[in-house]
Amino acid sequence: MTERLRLKKNADRRLKAGHLWLYSNEIDIEATPLKGIEPGAQAVIEAANGKAMGIAYVNPHSLICARVVSRDAEVRLDRSLLVHRFKQALGLRERLYAKPFYRLVHGEGDLLPGLVVDRFDDVLVVQLNTLGMERLAEEVVAALDKVLSPRAIVFKNDSSGRRQEQLEAQVEVVHGELPDQVLLEENGVRFVAPVLDGQKTGWFYDHRSNRAWLNGLVAGKRVLDLFSYVGGWGVQAAAHGAREVLCVDASAQALERVAENAALNGLTDQVAVGEGDAFEALAALKADGEQFDVVILDPPAFIKKRKDIPNGERAYSRLNREAMRLLGRDGLLLSASCSMHLAPERLVDVVRGAVRHQDRHGQVIYQGHQGPDHPVHPAIPETSYLKALGVRVFRD
Amino acid sequence: MTERLRLKKNADRRLKAGHLWLYSNEIDIEATPLKGIEPGAQAVIEAANGKAMGIAYVNPHSLICARVVSRDAEVRLDRSLLVHRFKQALGLRERLYAKPFYRLVHGEGDLLPGLVVDRFDDVLVVQLNTLGMERLAEEVVAALDKVLSPRAIVFKNDSSGRRQEQLEAQVEVVHGELPDQVLLEENGVRFVAPVLDGQKTGWFYDHRSNRAWLNGLVAGKRVLDLFSYVGGWGVQAAAHGAREVLCVDASAQALERVAENAALNGLTDQVAVGEGDAFEALAALKADGEQFDVVILDPPAFIKKRKDIPNGERAYSRLNREAMRLLGRDGLLLSASCSMHLAPERLVDVVRGAVRHQDRHGQVIYQGHQGPDHPVHPAIPETSYLKALGVRVFRD
Repeated sequence: MTERLRLKKNADRRLKAGHLWLYSNEIDIEATPLKGIEPGAQAVIEAANGKAMGIAYVNPHSLICARVVSRDAEVRLDRSLLVHRFKQALGLRERLYAKPFYRLVHGEGDLLPGLVVDRFDDVLVVQLNTLGMERLAEEVVAALDKVLSPRAIVFKNDSSGRRQEQLEAQVEVVHGELPDQVLLEENGVRFVAPVLDGQKTGWFYDHRSNRAWLNGLVAGKRVLDLFSYVGGWGVQAAAHGAREVLCVDASAQALERVAENAALNGLTDQVAVGEGDAFEALAALKADGEQFDVVILDPPAFIKKRKDIPNGERAYSRLNREAMRLLGRDGLLLSASCSMHLAPERLVDVVRGAVRHQDRHGQVIYQGHQGPDHPVHPAIPETSYLKALGVRVFRD
Repeated sequence: MTERLRLKKNADRRLKAGHLWLYSNEIDIEATPLKGIEPGAQAVIEAANGKAMGIAYVNPHSLICARVVSRDAEVRLDRSLLVHRFKQALGLRERLYAKPFYRLVHGEGDLLPGLVVDRFDDVLVVQLNTLGMERLAEEVVAALDKVLSPRAIVFKNDSSGRRQEQLEAQVEVVHGELPDQVLLEENGVRFVAPVLDGQKTGWFYDHRSNRAWLNGLVAGKRVLDLFSYVGGWGVQAAAHGAREVLCVDASAQALERVAENAALNGLTDQVAVGEGDAFEALAALKADGEQFDVVILDPPAFIKKRKDIPNGERAYSRLNREAMRLLGRDGLLLSASCSMHLAPERLVDVVRGAVRHQDRHGQVIYQGHQGPDHPVHPAIPETSYLKALGVRVFRD
């Protein structure tokens, strides 16, 4: 028997506009009790008039109680549809990239809510971020195997989204065997991806095009990479001719990997590391009279929830202001934010405030976003989260 | 004697935040009658408490009655400051580009309100868009000559902004001699710039990075370039391997130049032209059953004033919808807007609506803006005007 979820009157507008999410307060629970549906099961979504609008997987205990997986109510998200969607996703990436290093599946942006797959050649790292997707774990593995025959599939199931869906963490190799080192290449530079014990899937492919832009402007420069993680920005800058790069991170383990990645590209002499809190490091560098031509700010999300917006904006402001102090007369600031709740124009305003605070001038010469392997769903603003501004900061 | 303009109480906030514009209703005309200032003259801007905030040039008859040219009230915008600003502007472009083809001065974004200078190697095309800048015409020419010793300087003074400031059109060579052909190179492709009788300065450098992005995705594709003008997108696509390009424009003269530019790059066989209204052309192509892999929409601004927003958004929607019909099962739409009044997220919504209207799916894989030689002033949202979305449009 097929489960059904009926929407309240006028609650179908967002779906009609193309969105894939349903909130629990939009369900006509008199007609179709949400609690009656088994968590993770798929159900036909009906408009108030009974017309079938598509199929969604359901989590009665989540604020987003259902996510649409197809507008065809006759199908189910199963191995066959997963294979179809993976091929569609792969088709896009193969047009975009010559080498097999990219985000293969970007959740809603690839019509697969709750699923992320990053590809490191023949190693796939999977994140199942919802209960509905968790229930399809075996099918996901089987479908990925069918489409790509990978050497290994890793589940890196430790996202905060999972905790919200009351799913336990699970980090393990679920298919094949992991090589000793998982390597990737981005913008012509090689890196080791810590797929089991790094952040998220081990690597942030989303900044690829922003890094490519910056790479063109670092030759001969002294570069500071704050929140460096494993050196995605800093090691690439060194590979593109930066005279000297300092990578700062709070994690000693990440910095070990910076050194490893620098060595991998023959850049040990150009890349130094410093362990510590970003704000403390900025203050210490300032006290030492250090100056840089380029400062990269790619912090973790300071705004995780809407209610964090005021505090988060203050944190971005303080960070940008302090970082700008380390730039010389005519420097370049790369200021990023991965907070979905920080609108692009707000980040411009953060930069504006920092520039004014020091009576400097700023020119926003680059407004970057997530790369094309992180497609934005045009009806779901939440799928567009990454910002990177390139700002020339100068004294008149 | 130095003219002065005193602001009303609290009217200094925007200036303090870094903005460069003053509106006539912000002036304390009891203290400093706006009408008493000679149109085009420079005046010291004072806060309500009398503190000098900077220097601005004034047009009492314009809604924006003054534009700040320096935060140092002791200086004036004269030949010497123009030389300084031009050198600053040039410094940025020389870091960005290996070849001398770019926007050298982007008005407020380069702290030179009302002034635009596009560089085609040793030919400079100047737009003086305000009365204050018009009054400095001779100094602008002298300063450009000092910094770059160009072979020719052209005034292309026929903007709509000038009409608002009640300035007459003036299109002429004001310095040196114009060569028979003015050439430029963008993304490795050569073009003729019609500096005297083209649109704006003859060329739109602002889409350079957006074109570069698209160039990477057109190999082997059939491409439609609507509102092609002289072929900036279309001829570049052909140069980057497009199988077949159709450039459509309402201007026969522009299309002659498309053919000329195609020939200049040895691409005559790949580039066809069609004269006509864009909407009529879309309808005719649809009626003929034509299909394209890539459609480029780079229309003129449909929204020139705030009050045009509703009609303009409808025009963008119709255009995107009709253009999408010409895409095959899995096509790419490049949808641009140069309307400052169309917010980036509104253009995403235009695309969303078009995709839904045809029951297709869309993935926004690129969010582009104006290139870095068109710097955005972080306190002046009006200086950020260009949007270009790359959208994969497919049937599930």
